[in-house]
This record gives sequence, structure tokens and C-alpha cells, in this order.
Amino acid sequence: MKKFINHVDTLLDESLRGFAKANADLVAVSFEPRFVRRKRPSPDKVAVISGGGAGHEPLHTGFVGQGMLDAACPGQIFTSPTPDQMLAAAQSVAGEAGVVFIVKNYAGDVMNFEIAAEMLDCPSETVLVQDDIALPKEHEIGRRGVAGTLIVEKIVGAAAEEGADLRSLKALGDRVAGRIASIGVALSGCNVPALGGPTFDLPPDKIEFGVGIHGEHGREIVEFASATEIVKTMVEAIDEELHPRRGQKALLHVNGLGATTSMELHLVYELAHEFWSQAGIDICRSLVGNYTTALDMAGCSITLALLDDELIRLWDAPVHTPALRWGI
Amino acid sequence: MKKFINHVDTLLDESLRGFAKANADLVAVSFEPRFVRRKRPSPDKVAVISGGGAGHEPLHTGFVGQGMLDAACPGQIFTSPTPDQMLAAAQSVAGEAGVVFIVKNYAGDVMNFEIAAEMLDCPSETVLVQDDIALPKEHEIGRRGVAGTLIVEKIVGAAAEEGADLRSLKALGDRVAGRIASIGVALSGCNVPALGGPTFDLPPDKIEFGVGIHGEHGREIVEFASATEIVKTMVEAIDEELHPRRGQKALLHVNGLGATTSMELHLVYELAHEFWSQAGIDICRSLVGNYTTALDMAGCSITLALLDDELIRLWDAPVHTPALRWGI
Repeated sequence: MKKFINHVDTLLDESLRGFAKANADLVAVSFEPRFVRRKRPSPDKVAVISGGGAGHEPLHTGFVGQGMLDAACPGQIFTSPTPDQMLAAAQSVAGEAGVVFIVKNYAGDVMNFEIAAEMLDCPSETVLVQDDIALPKEHEIGRRGVAGTLIVEKIVGAAAEEGADLRSLKALGDRVAGRIASIGVALSGCNVPALGGPTFDLPPDKIEFGVGIHGEHGREIVEFASATEIVKTMVEAIDEELHPRRGQKALLHVNGLGATTSMELHLVYELAHEFWSQAGIDICRSLVGNYTTALDMAGCSITLALLDDELIRLWDAPVHTPALRWGI
Repeated sequence: MKKFINHVDTLLDESLRGFAKANADLVAVSFEPRFVRRKRPSPDKVAVISGGGAGHEPLHTGFVGQGMLDAACPGQIFTSPTPDQMLAAAQSVAGEAGVVFIVKNYAGDVMNFEIAAEMLDCPSETVLVQDDIALPKEHEIGRRGVAGTLIVEKIVGAAAEEGADLRSLKALGDRVAGRIASIGVALSGCNVPALGGPTFDLPPDKIEFGVGIHGEHGREIVEFASATEIVKTMVEAIDEELHPRRGQKALLHVNGLGATTSMELHLVYELAHEFWSQAGIDICRSLVGNYTTALDMAGCSITLALLDDELIRLWDAPVHTPALRWGI
């Protein structure tokens, strides 16, 4: 496995050092314990904090900044961050107004954010993101959080910036998280440095439908097919979940998992847009690119988020982070 | 080769349709002939136009918008656009103030932009970008234009937005282009849809030093090595070209070629930053990410651009395009 790397054990910190320097106008990075925070914290507002294993960049560190996250805690690659990271991050940015933790639904993340919340001496709430519809709703550990997470972070972050209180932010976060569905498809596994190779192998004529962002098994391994056929299956799965009605406004997010070209992502966007437009859905907001990656996996996910006027206003609100910038 | 694709012949247009919809607030796309232009042209200023083969996205179409390009002409993948595309693009955005064409130095691009310039009934100038130092300066067809191109587009675009005239923009573009050097390294070839496979194969222990953005052969195939060693060789090659002095202000751009993770790109940035900082170079501006890709090639390039106060001001000027946004 060829990668730009010195040593598996130093990759994360060396990379974070580069990230800190490349974005020195926006963020500051702590290394012991590891977290990224806004360069200029705003302790009067509720702090919005997320985190999770590294390897999904720009999620979450790339979303720290005005209008979105106050801090983010990166674990090692595909490994939950620890409670001391979350606690230190919270202490560095939060005041009496408290903290909203936005947590992707993975056992380690959930447990560690819970421990951190208990140790924290200011009020906190947790918004759990479970947008990956690959698993059934009644799955024993629940559904995974994937590319829809950034939408929750953007919208809750915007409301926090406007001064919303902890209770409203928790309610808003839960409401948004309940209106988002995502499904991913892998054309290949991803190469994890600590493994020295791919997480899984797919035959040349197969794809993994419903793959997770760590290469977890999805719904099923299916035949490779045309983009139109693949996208149709993805859109239909989301449709069955959200049942959007004619005239429903929505955000369509096509996310690259790492090694898929911009041309392909825009093709997937075009096809998904076409399907939903024909069903009378008003795709009024868009995001296409690599935002929630699975290292160098070839593949993509489609996310649909049902919007209303309030959510559109919050999505459009100014944001100034390393990976998302507008209105400022 | 698994790709999200319907047919090789329709990929570009289907993808452009998605690009047009996802960025409908910023750009308009013409299909016969193919070009992307600002949604709201500003015919009173000099128009800045670029173009080249597709497969390098977001270059150039992603850089159309306020403060950067007025239009861009995508050819088929790795294929020059035709003079009628450039002519139609120019006619749709340019007025009496004229056109600056920013052209990467490839024979087909150069020839076709030249033909378009001759057919145009307004004044025009061409800025040739040859930032790839893989080939010697005295190479018979000259050096290739690669990731440094977007820096020329950003700076000339900003000056055009401020109302600079054609002659000044040509002089500015030539000056910037003369202060930029890039070098790329490939860990793998890229998969070209029309070929149905990779442009070249590299053994597991080799990398291509000085690779071009279409997978052209570079300086030499060398042993795979640690990130520190690879980056050191890249930085030294650029140093030998530009001879930056202590105290020199510079923009450091680390560009992903398609399939390289954000963690690795930031690691490369960190190492290059460290080398130059120790040499007393003031890395005062940064850009890290996939901006000039070679489809799904694993690899990256490092670009150094020597700045002065005027160039810093123009780099910092507001820009609002699909792929670069700040200050607006």
C-alpha cells in the first residue's frame, strides 16, 4: 500500500499540524489531548462540538469555524476519540450556555461523548445522527451516522451562532436529524494505513450497496451496473424512507467517499436530481464533493434532507470554516 | 474499471448538467458548443477565459465566477477544447475591453486558443502557464501547465474584476506565471474511461516523480519512500528552480491528484511548510485540496508561488466560484 506517510503512529499528528498551519486564520489545534477549536471562541453562545475517528476529512475538523462547529475531536483513523479529548475541547470553547454534542451513532463515539458529558460542569445535550438507511430502523445498535451529519452541524451551528439556547438547539438538531436519509455505494474498499491494505475486496463486477464510511458491510453486494441504474436504486431507497411529497423542498448532497472523480459525482447528482425533479421534489439546495470520506474508497453517497423555510435560512446562513465557506 | 458512468460518450455532458444545476446561482452552461460562463456576465471588464481537457475538475469550470474566470471551455477527458468553444465562450462574456486567455501549455490547447483569438473580433492576449518543472526549461515543446494555473487565474481574475486593462492583465499574468513552480508525484496511474483502465502501471515499490496531470511520464520512476523523503525531493526541485531567498513571501499549494486522502495532503503540506520555514521562506498563504486533478490518480503536487504585496492583495480579493469562495 503506497501512501504519503512516515509512520502509522505519527500520521494523524503530522497531518493535524499541516491542517493547523494551512488554516491558521480559522482554527487552533491542541495535541494533548487532540482537538481543533475555533481560533476565536465565542463563549457566550452554546458551543457546538462534534468528533469521531479520523479518515473522514474534512468531517469534522474541516467544519470548525464561524457558523458551524466550535470544536471537533479527531480520534485515530476509524477510532473513536476519548472522553478527555471531548472534555478538553468543551472546556476550551464552552461557557455557561452549555454544549451541544453532535454525535454519529457508533458505539464508541456514543459512549465516550456520554462520559464526557457527565464529566462536564456545564449543561449539555446530545444530538445523535443516524442518517444511514442501509440498516433497518429496528437494528439493535441503530443506524450509523454518515454524510448527513454535516447538514446537522451546519444547521445547528447557524442557530447557535444566532444565539439559540441549549434546549432549542437540541430540539432543532433532533428535528433536522429526523429529516435526513443517506445511502452509500462502494466500488472498492479503502486502504487503512494500520492494516496496510484494503478493508475489503470487491470482484470487478460487484459493488457494495449500503456501504458504511469505514467500509462496513452494507445491505448487499450487487452487480455493477450503469450509473442510472445504481442511482435509481439509491434514490428509491431514500424515497421509501422519507416519503417526500410533491412540492417538498430538499437539499441534495452527493458525497464522494475519497477516490471518485468530480465528474462522476456531478453525474450522480444530475441523475438523482432528475429522478426527484420528475417526482415533483424541489431540490432547492445542493452540495457536491468530498465532505465525509472513507479514506481513499471509490464510491459515493446520496443524502436527501427535507427542508422548510427555517432550515433553508439556517443552511444559507454565513459559514466560514476550512471546508465550507459562504456568506462571509 | 468500475466508475459511475452510463456511457463514455455522454459522461461529460451528463456531468456538466449536474454541475450546472448544483451551481445554478453562479454559472450557466452551454452545450453546443460546450462552455461554462458566469451567470451574470460583466461585459465592461476584460473577460478572463480558460479551458482544457476535462478530468482535472474543479479546474477550470469550478473557477468560473466573480473574481476569477468569466468562462471556461471543457474538452472531452484529457482532450483540448475546440476553437469554436472558445470563440462562443468569449462572445458570450466579452465586450470591447477584450479577453485574456489563460492557457496551459499543451500543443492542442495552445493551437486552438490561438485560432480562437484570430477569429475573435475584440482584442485579446494569451497568458501561457508552464509551471511544471518536471521537464527542463529548454524542452522542445516547453513545460506543461499544471496546478499553478489556478493561481494565475485567481490573481488575473481579481485584477480584471478591479478594472485592469488588457495590457496590464497580460503583464500581470506573465509576471505571476514566471514566479510559480510545481512538481507532481504519482503513486498510481489514473483510470481513463475511454481506455477502460489505467494510463500506466507502477510496481508496488515505485513512484513516478514529476508526473503530469494526464499521467505523462515525469522525470523518473523512483523508489517509494517515506513522505519526508518524497517531499524533500519535491521541495528541493522547486527550490532549484525558483531560488527563493530568506524572507520571501510565498503561497504553498498542495494539490491532490484525485485519490489521495486529505490527511496525506495535509501531511505533505506540513512537511513542505517545515522545509521552507527552516529556510526562512514566509509561507503566508496556503491552499490544500483537490483542485487540479488527474481523474482518480493517487498522488499529489506541490506548488510554490512567490508573492509580493500586490499579489497577496489580489490573491486575498473576494472570489465566488463553485470551488473557491472567500470574502463574499
